[in-house]
Amino acid sequence: MHTERLLLGPGPSNPYPEVYEAFTRPVIGHLDPVFLGLLDETQDMLRRVFRTKNALTLPVSATGSAGMEACVVNLVEPGDKVIIGVNGVFGGRMCEVAERAGAEVIRIDFPWGQAVDPQALLDAQKQNPEARFVGVVHAETSVGVRSDIAPLRALQQTDTMLLVDCVTSLGGSELLIDEWGVDAAYSGTQKCLGVPPGLSPVTFSERAVKRSTEGRTKPVQSWYLDVGLIGAYVGSGRKYHHTAPVSMVYALHAGLKRVLDEGLENCWARHQRVSDMLHQEMAKLGFTPFAQEGHRLAQLNTFFLPEGLDDAGTRKRLLEEYNIEVGGGLGDVAGKIWRVGLMAQGAQERSVATLIGALNQILG
Amino acid sequence: MHTERLLLGPGPSNPYPEVYEAFTRPVIGHLDPVFLGLLDETQDMLRRVFRTKNALTLPVSATGSAGMEACVVNLVEPGDKVIIGVNGVFGGRMCEVAERAGAEVIRIDFPWGQAVDPQALLDAQKQNPEARFVGVVHAETSVGVRSDIAPLRALQQTDTMLLVDCVTSLGGSELLIDEWGVDAAYSGTQKCLGVPPGLSPVTFSERAVKRSTEGRTKPVQSWYLDVGLIGAYVGSGRKYHHTAPVSMVYALHAGLKRVLDEGLENCWARHQRVSDMLHQEMAKLGFTPFAQEGHRLAQLNTFFLPEGLDDAGTRKRLLEEYNIEVGGGLGDVAGKIWRVGLMAQGAQERSVATLIGALNQILG
Repeated sequence: MHTERLLLGPGPSNPYPEVYEAFTRPVIGHLDPVFLGLLDETQDMLRRVFRTKNALTLPVSATGSAGMEACVVNLVEPGDKVIIGVNGVFGGRMCEVAERAGAEVIRIDFPWGQAVDPQALLDAQKQNPEARFVGVVHAETSVGVRSDIAPLRALQQTDTMLLVDCVTSLGGSELLIDEWGVDAAYSGTQKCLGVPPGLSPVTFSERAVKRSTEGRTKPVQSWYLDVGLIGAYVGSGRKYHHTAPVSMVYALHAGLKRVLDEGLENCWARHQRVSDMLHQEMAKLGFTPFAQEGHRLAQLNTFFLPEGLDDAGTRKRLLEEYNIEVGGGLGDVAGKIWRVGLMAQGAQERSVATLIGALNQILG
Repeated sequence: MHTERLLLGPGPSNPYPEVYEAFTRPVIGHLDPVFLGLLDETQDMLRRVFRTKNALTLPVSATGSAGMEACVVNLVEPGDKVIIGVNGVFGGRMCEVAERAGAEVIRIDFPWGQAVDPQALLDAQKQNPEARFVGVVHAETSVGVRSDIAPLRALQQTDTMLLVDCVTSLGGSELLIDEWGVDAAYSGTQKCLGVPPGLSPVTFSERAVKRSTEGRTKPVQSWYLDVGLIGAYVGSGRKYHHTAPVSMVYALHAGLKRVLDEGLENCWARHQRVSDMLHQEMAKLGFTPFAQEGHRLAQLNTFFLPEGLDDAGTRKRLLEEYNIEVGGGLGDVAGKIWRVGLMAQGAQERSVATLIGALNQILG
């Protein structure tokens, strides 16, 4: 018996139907010309959803956290300074990954629920012009907050690069890698691309590529995540590195095609429209927004629970009786907030109707 | 239009039909009790195919090379000595991964086509009793050679651990992790388990777990591959680490079930039977075995080409006209040998009939 859920948590989201179909495609070799053609198309489509011309744009063969690690270990060497803005779990994770790579981390904390202030990061960079990168999470999944990236374009005038976590933003809300001057970014497949978890799309600007290859004194500490080696396979060299996860690439190809067929901006607009509907309906049930106004993610909505609502018990009933998953809070806000994801296939009016209908039955 | 191939190269192999079916299973959350139950079953089945009781036995969320890196970075710290036997590409890769992790590598080379001599590794360990591990590739995919692991059980009497690459052996030929005294091993899904590439099953003995957690002075350099953190999610703690690649776990679960339903020893025997048939038939066409007698892998058969045979041209015709993939040689033996994989779904008499039939048409 297979369990089926409406996935309205922080991810994975429900895949687009085309993606399941792609998984039935016969596996072929990772050096087969047909597969390499499909990989080229996947890279082209990734460039379109990232809004970039970066040659080094590819899916890392592991989940989003490995994409984070790939970006970090390719950009830093032991002893390098980095500046990281933290307003939730994933900013904190970036600090830990950087520390393990031997970096000296200048961590700038912001209250959970608030956006990262780009000016504070720029100020920190002025005091530490030798910093290798400024890192920030565009869409903090742990709190449902969108931080402004565009002002950080000013880093292009410095020797400090801009690293952005786009795990939850890619495909779900405006993201403009080239226009915002992002040097390195990573994402995941299991959020707004409507693909199961398993790959991490990354993109590197020319100066990020330079830094990660000829700009180093020692090889990248991770052989598996060395983008120079990965790029030599995925790019025109076709030099064998590791065996590409063929079926997951099929799935990503299908998810990207679906997003681009709908139109990237239409896709962003759909996520916003459905989120607006959710907020209206949740307000009627006494849920109030947690994230800072003007910085709320459409694809990941956070709410304070109404007075007296049983957090774990209600989520358990939603899951067991209604097959609906919503996310609870993490860390300091555990038990205090819910995280309601409306991503990819889940970002449709029916999802809101289903959740609200179930909540009315449980709470009513 | 979807391309379909008979995959008789070094991997990926053709997945078992049950595995494609598993991919259509609806995606659910990585913390969903139903998924966690499935993950438990997957771990249990992995223990059965690895022939181990190791608690820390799990699929790393990336391909086989990441499993190699996971084993290495969890066991070593910068400055540690390690001893690695090399008789092909993958032994060489283990050296590179260890060097990037800061290890001092004592590399012991053996001629390509020959097995690694366990006594030479034991002798090296006697001269370097502080070595953290002895590493060896059980089934060298680049040359089709099986090395003896059992004699290395003697390392259990020392402080040096035994690390074994089982990428191509797991599920395809005898592999006895506990009986052979293996401390850490990694594999891939895309060979004899009949699952697409994307996950790397690993297993750690108690002393390997101890070394990778409390036995260290610094955290593991890779956050993503830290088996302590992964084990806290996959094990009973259920502490969120990264988003598990849900669909790939479904696929692995199905592949393992198929292998165990057939019976692990029956599965090994099938690979051997079909390989014997291949050798008989290839001999008639003038192909002679490359790998050392007594150390030939059933699942990955290597042959010197007959005098005058056009390597690339023939493989191209097999691929384009017959949709059959066979592998060429790597490195020093490029252009001189073929690698014919008979793995998982491909390890059946029909594969041999198909390949030989096509070769007769092309060469005849």
